[in-house]
Amino acid sequence: MDWTGLAASSMGVAERPFAVHRDGDTIPGILWAPEDATGAVPLVLLGHGGSSEKRNEAGLALARRFVRRHGIAVAAIDAIDHGERGPIRPVEDPAGHPDYIALWKRPDTFDRMNADWKATLDDLLATGLFDAKRVGYWGLSMGTMLGLPFVASEPRIRAAVLGLCGFAGPSAVRGRFGPRHRIDAPNVTCPVLFMVQWDDERFDRDGAFELFGALGAKDKRMHVHPGLHGELSVEASTATREFLAERLA
Amino acid sequence: MDWTGLAASSMGVAERPFAVHRDGDTIPGILWAPEDATGAVPLVLLGHGGSSEKRNEAGLALARRFVRRHGIAVAAIDAIDHGERGPIRPVEDPAGHPDYIALWKRPDTFDRMNADWKATLDDLLATGLFDAKRVGYWGLSMGTMLGLPFVASEPRIRAAVLGLCGFAGPSAVRGRFGPRHRIDAPNVTCPVLFMVQWDDERFDRDGAFELFGALGAKDKRMHVHPGLHGELSVEASTATREFLAERLA
Repeated sequence: MDWTGLAASSMGVAERPFAVHRDGDTIPGILWAPEDATGAVPLVLLGHGGSSEKRNEAGLALARRFVRRHGIAVAAIDAIDHGERGPIRPVEDPAGHPDYIALWKRPDTFDRMNADWKATLDDLLATGLFDAKRVGYWGLSMGTMLGLPFVASEPRIRAAVLGLCGFAGPSAVRGRFGPRHRIDAPNVTCPVLFMVQWDDERFDRDGAFELFGALGAKDKRMHVHPGLHGELSVEASTATREFLAERLA
Repeated sequence: MDWTGLAASSMGVAERPFAVHRDGDTIPGILWAPEDATGAVPLVLLGHGGSSEKRNEAGLALARRFVRRHGIAVAAIDAIDHGERGPIRPVEDPAGHPDYIALWKRPDTFDRMNADWKATLDDLLATGLFDAKRVGYWGLSMGTMLGLPFVASEPRIRAAVLGLCGFAGPSAVRGRFGPRHRIDAPNVTCPVLFMVQWDDERFDRDGAFELFGALGAKDKRMHVHPGLHGELSVEASTATREFLAERLA
């Protein structure tokens, strides 16, 4: 892993870009950490949404809150074909972008993303900055589409926030992750908070409930709020943060 | 309203029995309030479950926590035919008690219970001990079966915890509250936290989701946890308390 830039500080949060190298591929990431950390801190891996990228506005705000309010570091990487790894760029309807659709047709997408996250976690833990026993995952929508198989396969993840995803609805049909999730969901055994938007126009709530039911974790809970896919409330977002903060305390 | 006994104190909580008189009927209740309250405090009306009574173990613990941790007073009354208003007593399966079944066959049950709660609230507010603008309702299972019509009809209730109830399952079939709830649910417009037990053997989760969807409140959320009807987790219980405490702050 290389640090690819200097740390920039903003009200107690040190933000620093990095790059992980794996099998000839470069995975660009960003770390947000407490500026004044004196020992190993907990770490949350943050998976971004479809057609977004590692430093999207909502993710940046969330990461800063994790650092400032809980002393938890956050690392995000660009998903395959997203952000600096292009060509997928934000569009009005992510499910409609041709490169986005192509991503889900390739048979190795999940395994590549799993390996990317594992290599990232390996490298981050090797810095000695983080407590290897206090690592969580946060990813909604595509952050669950790609993140659920990772959480299922990675015992170092001690707690996860998942959701805005399920087995039915337009984004489920196009994303083609259903068969993989049906296999992997029972292997998600760490504590989980699963988020559902009652009026989600991309993932039908019934399919989201089914995915929640399929999660192998005994210690799981689901929070459901009114609103469309992209309308996660402040209350819901706060609950996800507090859940991980408590589990990684 | 009469105080029917002296206040008993327990670690900051003053507990005092009372009786409300309405149309020749006596409604026995209990008030739990902060011992050291100096002004009008918020008030939560607590509706107990089927075949239970106003001072059941879980309700008592919840009431004390409301007082001690949030400075919120709690009042519970015996539901019609329950507790001191007998003849319904705790049995293994509340849905199976003949007097319990009879309660739901009587056409006036909901309106009587609404009037009981309204009279209780009138009398409690007349004491001047409580802030009339900070009144909430907490009732799960039968506390929702009987409490939802009350919340729907009582604008003084500013926030409510409802749940462990729905349109399907054995207790829904026997309780016969469905038609009334279908009319009243859209009139529940205060902020609501709705609780569902994923494995509820008395109320099918699909019917619970349907009831959540029918609630008229825009500001509503649903928390779903694994477990049977009677297995509400500490986390879930805490969330209900914190929700009302925040809304009545």
